[in-house]
Amino acid sequence: MRAVDVIRKKREGHALSVEEIDWMVEGIGRDVPDYQWSALLMAILWRGMTDAETAALTDAMMRSGSMVDLSETPGLKVDKHSTGGVGDKTSLILAPMAAAAGVPVPMVSGRGLGHTGGTLDKLESIPGFRVDLDLERYKRVLDECGLVLIGQTAEIAPADKVLYALRDATATVESIPLISASIMSKKLAEGIDGLVLDVKTGNGAFMENLDDSRALARAMCAIGRALGKRMRALITRMDQPLGRAVGNAVEIAECVECLRGHGPGDLMDLSVELAAEMVVMGEVASTLDEARERCWRTIADGSALARFRKLVSAQGGDLHAIDDLTRLPQPKGRIEVDSKLAGYVHSLLARPIGQATMLLGAGRARVDSKIDPSVGVILHKKVGDRVEAGEPLCTVLVNDAPGIEVALTMIGEAYSIEEGPVTIDPLIVERI
Amino acid sequence: MRAVDVIRKKREGHALSVEEIDWMVEGIGRDVPDYQWSALLMAILWRGMTDAETAALTDAMMRSGSMVDLSETPGLKVDKHSTGGVGDKTSLILAPMAAAAGVPVPMVSGRGLGHTGGTLDKLESIPGFRVDLDLERYKRVLDECGLVLIGQTAEIAPADKVLYALRDATATVESIPLISASIMSKKLAEGIDGLVLDVKTGNGAFMENLDDSRALARAMCAIGRALGKRMRALITRMDQPLGRAVGNAVEIAECVECLRGHGPGDLMDLSVELAAEMVVMGEVASTLDEARERCWRTIADGSALARFRKLVSAQGGDLHAIDDLTRLPQPKGRIEVDSKLAGYVHSLLARPIGQATMLLGAGRARVDSKIDPSVGVILHKKVGDRVEAGEPLCTVLVNDAPGIEVALTMIGEAYSIEEGPVTIDPLIVERI
Repeated sequence: MRAVDVIRKKREGHALSVEEIDWMVEGIGRDVPDYQWSALLMAILWRGMTDAETAALTDAMMRSGSMVDLSETPGLKVDKHSTGGVGDKTSLILAPMAAAAGVPVPMVSGRGLGHTGGTLDKLESIPGFRVDLDLERYKRVLDECGLVLIGQTAEIAPADKVLYALRDATATVESIPLISASIMSKKLAEGIDGLVLDVKTGNGAFMENLDDSRALARAMCAIGRALGKRMRALITRMDQPLGRAVGNAVEIAECVECLRGHGPGDLMDLSVELAAEMVVMGEVASTLDEARERCWRTIADGSALARFRKLVSAQGGDLHAIDDLTRLPQPKGRIEVDSKLAGYVHSLLARPIGQATMLLGAGRARVDSKIDPSVGVILHKKVGDRVEAGEPLCTVLVNDAPGIEVALTMIGEAYSIEEGPVTIDPLIVERI
Repeated sequence: MRAVDVIRKKREGHALSVEEIDWMVEGIGRDVPDYQWSALLMAILWRGMTDAETAALTDAMMRSGSMVDLSETPGLKVDKHSTGGVGDKTSLILAPMAAAAGVPVPMVSGRGLGHTGGTLDKLESIPGFRVDLDLERYKRVLDECGLVLIGQTAEIAPADKVLYALRDATATVESIPLISASIMSKKLAEGIDGLVLDVKTGNGAFMENLDDSRALARAMCAIGRALGKRMRALITRMDQPLGRAVGNAVEIAECVECLRGHGPGDLMDLSVELAAEMVVMGEVASTLDEARERCWRTIADGSALARFRKLVSAQGGDLHAIDDLTRLPQPKGRIEVDSKLAGYVHSLLARPIGQATMLLGAGRARVDSKIDPSVGVILHKKVGDRVEAGEPLCTVLVNDAPGIEVALTMIGEAYSIEEGPVTIDPLIVERI
């Protein structure tokens, strides 16, 4: 087989065979130099891939590294993956809920990039919390706690790491087959039986347009099913930030409030909905209604919070910071942004809020940026809320970052205040 | 500037600026690694390039190396370039004709690849002939002889060498802007004032289809004109081999016969037509009719042959081999391929004839293959000729190559003999 022939075949719009895809992935860094792979990536972005090709690519990338075997852990193992948003901390609420309801949740999460936050960065704002467990310890924490939350290890899907870096350098990121295969190769290597996807759509999502979000959701479900996994996707709105907190420590605090039963409605509703899908997928409940009820009960009886405390403890985190949230990293300053107008919040754009928190130091402009766990934004007013002139819209948590003034302006401009009532679209757009 | 942004811009179908193209070409092997260039090449193959972009790419590649200054050589310097065919030895006939008519012809030629032959390989079948002159010697031979024929030196358009190797490995050869820029960057660096193009079309050409050949001819003319050169393109048929000889020494012998006034009609007509275009471009004649007459006269008065002998001598070749053609490399065996049928030759496919001579050793399957100068084919029957059953169609010149049997079969099958008269299409399809 010759790489140039495989590239030509894709360039001409034909589907590649499983053997061709396997050969190209196995050849990464050996028989197939980077410059041939980057030409193939551009040809894939141009010509697309069938579901069968995308599944074969995912499978080959998954097999490039270690595959976790969780067969000794009883029950159906279910994870959730979100395509990323602003203020999206559902993982840290739903994983303890699903675990408390009886579904083992082995979760390999990512870091924030650009305007979106990352679960690992948020967890690391808990003093002592370690996300870099090896695969043995990962299994042990799962068995002890019913859930585990780590970062991608070097052992998982190394081919994806190489291809992702190439895509980033060659403007070939925005391809649905390549995005799907990248996400799914890592998720499927973690030993799960099923996966619930939260595919975001709207101005704060990577896919702003509903058709693209739907196509991505369908592609990922098709891959998972082709490789024998249970799959479910919810397409959800990411027009305004989820919940009231955007940042790292401030989001952990909001999660703990949610687990204590005091979370904001949108965040709790979405977390319960995703957790309920996991509970049905894990065959712990037979209907969504029954599953929702079980999930809410884990909040009411404190069992979800207990699971989260157990997880923090098992992964080295300081429980005092969970029990007394003032012990989480605190910023030096708090600045209120007040409304200039009276009226209703008609929109609160997630993307500039995410970009502003990145400027404050809460996120990463580059993969190697260091983040500041204590900064962020607390939103007092969200879409549909009444506000008077001079009333605070939000509180901005700051340290000495050079971009504070710009961030404050961006945050103020993210709000649009108008007269007249607002209609709020439902958070869940559709299920696939 | 960042390469990833330039790649994205082209991927999205936008035209690149002169600055962006310059920056990418200057960055080859430095700021822009191969894997970014190969992604850009695939995006160019996908999205195309405007005439302005193609001219800028050509200009940047040309400026990546030495530019020959021929301003001290009096007169308008004119070259010819053919896109490659089978039995196409017009360069070696028209260059002495145009030179003898008074147009200086500085020619940088290529080697054969695949089913097509190359001028340099043919010249090297003359014992002692050197095609690897440096640029100083190149100028001296041009001034002495009125013509010079060398291979591409490392000093000319090095960026094209890198990009050509990348295109070859990444299935991005077949892009009209990339083909045009590659050819023109080398041709324009040789110090010419004008260029006559012979763009082949038909089964023996790289561009089999007339629309593609026309697009290539137009793209190359647009580049040349944008960079201030006189340009003319003839689109000519390459359905059957040109002339009667296909190989290396056997083609040199045919050229010498042409210069002696005994050449086959199709080959002489095309050589005179191209030479006449050069003579008009060089302002030695004012009409094509006058130019044709001057070119024929250089054959009749022996001045074209004298120029060729002078060139051979100046570049180290053995004149005895030109004056006594039996001193050119001879094959060990000659095998006649006879017709099984009686009738008329309805077609004689150039591509399988070219492939068969490559199998015999006359051509290159790979860039580093060594060629055998003595083997080839002499075609006794061409399209339109009457043939009887058992009469020889051609003589195959062979040494001990492993592919002889396959080559003989291919050559036999390249002929199609049928009853009934044949209409022969004119060799010159159009002028641009």
